[in-house]
Amino acid sequence: MTATAATTARDRMLLAKEAARSVGRLTDAEKRDALLAIADAIEAATPAIVEANAEDLERGRATGLSVALQDRLRLDDPRVGALATAVREVAALPDPVGRVLDERVLPNGVALTKVSVPFGVVGSIYEARPNVTVDIAALALRSGNAVVLRGGTAAELTNAALVDVMRDALADRGIDPEAIQTVDSFGREGARELMHARGIVDVLVPRGSAQLIEAVVTESSVPVIETGAGVVHIVLDASAPLEWARDIVVNAKVQRPSVCNAVETVLVHRDAAERLVSPVVAALQEQGVTVHGDDRVSALAEGVVPATDDDWATEYLSLDLSMRVVDDLDDALAHIRRYSTHHTESIITQDDASAERFLAEVDSAVVMANASTRFTDGAEFGFGAEVGISTQKLHARGPMGLAELTSTKWIARGAGQVRE
Amino acid sequence: MTATAATTARDRMLLAKEAARSVGRLTDAEKRDALLAIADAIEAATPAIVEANAEDLERGRATGLSVALQDRLRLDDPRVGALATAVREVAALPDPVGRVLDERVLPNGVALTKVSVPFGVVGSIYEARPNVTVDIAALALRSGNAVVLRGGTAAELTNAALVDVMRDALADRGIDPEAIQTVDSFGREGARELMHARGIVDVLVPRGSAQLIEAVVTESSVPVIETGAGVVHIVLDASAPLEWARDIVVNAKVQRPSVCNAVETVLVHRDAAERLVSPVVAALQEQGVTVHGDDRVSALAEGVVPATDDDWATEYLSLDLSMRVVDDLDDALAHIRRYSTHHTESIITQDDASAERFLAEVDSAVVMANASTRFTDGAEFGFGAEVGISTQKLHARGPMGLAELTSTKWIARGAGQVRE
Repeated sequence: MTATAATTARDRMLLAKEAARSVGRLTDAEKRDALLAIADAIEAATPAIVEANAEDLERGRATGLSVALQDRLRLDDPRVGALATAVREVAALPDPVGRVLDERVLPNGVALTKVSVPFGVVGSIYEARPNVTVDIAALALRSGNAVVLRGGTAAELTNAALVDVMRDALADRGIDPEAIQTVDSFGREGARELMHARGIVDVLVPRGSAQLIEAVVTESSVPVIETGAGVVHIVLDASAPLEWARDIVVNAKVQRPSVCNAVETVLVHRDAAERLVSPVVAALQEQGVTVHGDDRVSALAEGVVPATDDDWATEYLSLDLSMRVVDDLDDALAHIRRYSTHHTESIITQDDASAERFLAEVDSAVVMANASTRFTDGAEFGFGAEVGISTQKLHARGPMGLAELTSTKWIARGAGQVRE
Repeated sequence: MTATAATTARDRMLLAKEAARSVGRLTDAEKRDALLAIADAIEAATPAIVEANAEDLERGRATGLSVALQDRLRLDDPRVGALATAVREVAALPDPVGRVLDERVLPNGVALTKVSVPFGVVGSIYEARPNVTVDIAALALRSGNAVVLRGGTAAELTNAALVDVMRDALADRGIDPEAIQTVDSFGREGARELMHARGIVDVLVPRGSAQLIEAVVTESSVPVIETGAGVVHIVLDASAPLEWARDIVVNAKVQRPSVCNAVETVLVHRDAAERLVSPVVAALQEQGVTVHGDDRVSALAEGVVPATDDDWATEYLSLDLSMRVVDDLDDALAHIRRYSTHHTESIITQDDASAERFLAEVDSAVVMANASTRFTDGAEFGFGAEVGISTQKLHARGPMGLAELTSTKWIARGAGQVRE
């Protein structure tokens, strides 16, 4: 374990800030090599990591952690290998630092260049997923940032083991290991200090449940990038072809129901309801989906559970889906305005005017025509890695890649110019 | 006056959110015409605006408003004319909405386009400057946003008159006047509601004193773009030519001392101190500047006031300047790390290595070599207008133009694709 003199969460964050200066100046090759060293070190430390994880799991079972959360928490040899692979993938991405984003020469000859620079210190607050510990650290380092991590208590020993391995790997490469910090051992107070470390931590990325994200957004005075919650809609327009409607809705719900880009609500145009509701509901039910429908849906299909008002606002993250018949596109747009979390919405239609109106008017990070909402994803978009999916409008919106972990700086080069 | 049914600050903000939908879809020409109509209406309403302003001024004198603030608040015919001119300048800028920022076609044929879109509702909290009322409204509308304004109580009648004129001008052009709202009449509660209108107001831009900005940053749950405070440094390196050093320091301090890009602290390399301190101090004093110096500065120049530790952290915004002799560039960089507000810093040097190190290592919105810090300005940078100067790293850093009042949206066009 790399020794550290820090005795408070604030001390640790100050060490990260200090380390950010040298990490921010590493070359592309140095950052890549550091990540490859981390990946190797994680693989080499597999037994120790799995052992720490076993202790967390034992405590989890003793304290009644749900089976689903136990599965999220669990690391075995292949899963540790997958962590290392993910780090190598981030290492292979292009350096997001030092890109020239704008250049101009003022009439007086002062030359201006706007370049991408690291934020400095990236903070993350997340829940029982040890893979986030490694993912966020790798993404932060690749973009020249130091990182302060606050994982869930359930994964404390696992996270501590992973952080130790990563810090040691940095130290071995001559890089300041203080660039990776965890405040897990400070409990809730550590999380609170992280959310109030304005001036030390430059940006905070919460990862986890809607409640966690809401709590961080409300409490934090550090600027937050809000990620995640997705009450995602698909509209089946009057002209929606049955095959597209059925395949896209089933794919968007069933392919991975527990993620934020899975569809939660399907709105069916009245003129297509008789043609589409029954076969789409049947196809969903065949895949084990429970459809919560309004009266008009219930009248057209078997086995539909009556939807309540709460259903329209619910991110199920499960094999449940709400379905409503709407009078027209206006009605669909009004429903989306009321209930959407501004993540992703898609319309299935053969009418170009409807498609273009939907794409223009829906105010979400990603708006689609005739495609599955499951495509809202950094890897699918070709970013190579994903920091999260931003549902806010400031700084980053939609899938965030490495570039979204950088800020900018204007550099001005003159020869004695003064302002008239 | 345009009638409105809103009886609470929240009602007004909801009307703005509703209006944002139609304003966000206006064409370039429609937005330009709306701003030209506003400019004409402001000019036509000069007598009413000046009269309302006279009432504010009278109240200000009665309640002991300082002469400087009275001057900021005062609108006469030429100043109202200047407001209209500023609106016409914003009208003439290119539309920041609808720019294609990224395009990619996924291997499965889904076509992705990332376009700039309006934020929706822009909020601003500011102090006794009626020009901000018009500036922010014009910038918000030009970028397709609705706006919610909260000006200082001192300018309440003036701001109300300006808002009425602008709303009427929109209504005359068939544009929803609810796109411009003020919550001034709701007092402090209005400001508080604005800061907590997350989900209604998309971004909040405070304009004014460091205290105001700090209060908004701390209180607001709406995402904030922090602007302004500038403890700005100039470093005179060992090789700094006397003429550049003197001209740039004097320009950066004296040309307009009350603004955020004016220099506050000069750090002189030890090896240049004997050569530079005396003439630079003399040139500043000739312009009426009081120099607050450390012992080494005091030993080299006449009439220097001893600097205290507080001086290094002070944004004077006046004809005061602090000066310190530093041992080397490391010492200067450490001082800047400790006291800078990350706005603008400049080095005067003939040594390329010193310049490049300074430009790389100083973590500020704008870093300069051999130029006056007064160039950190939207108009000087060629943006045509300025929303403010961001000193944060999220979303926008440095001078913000119209583009910084937009967010983005990914548009995906498919033909039935689902995720494998």
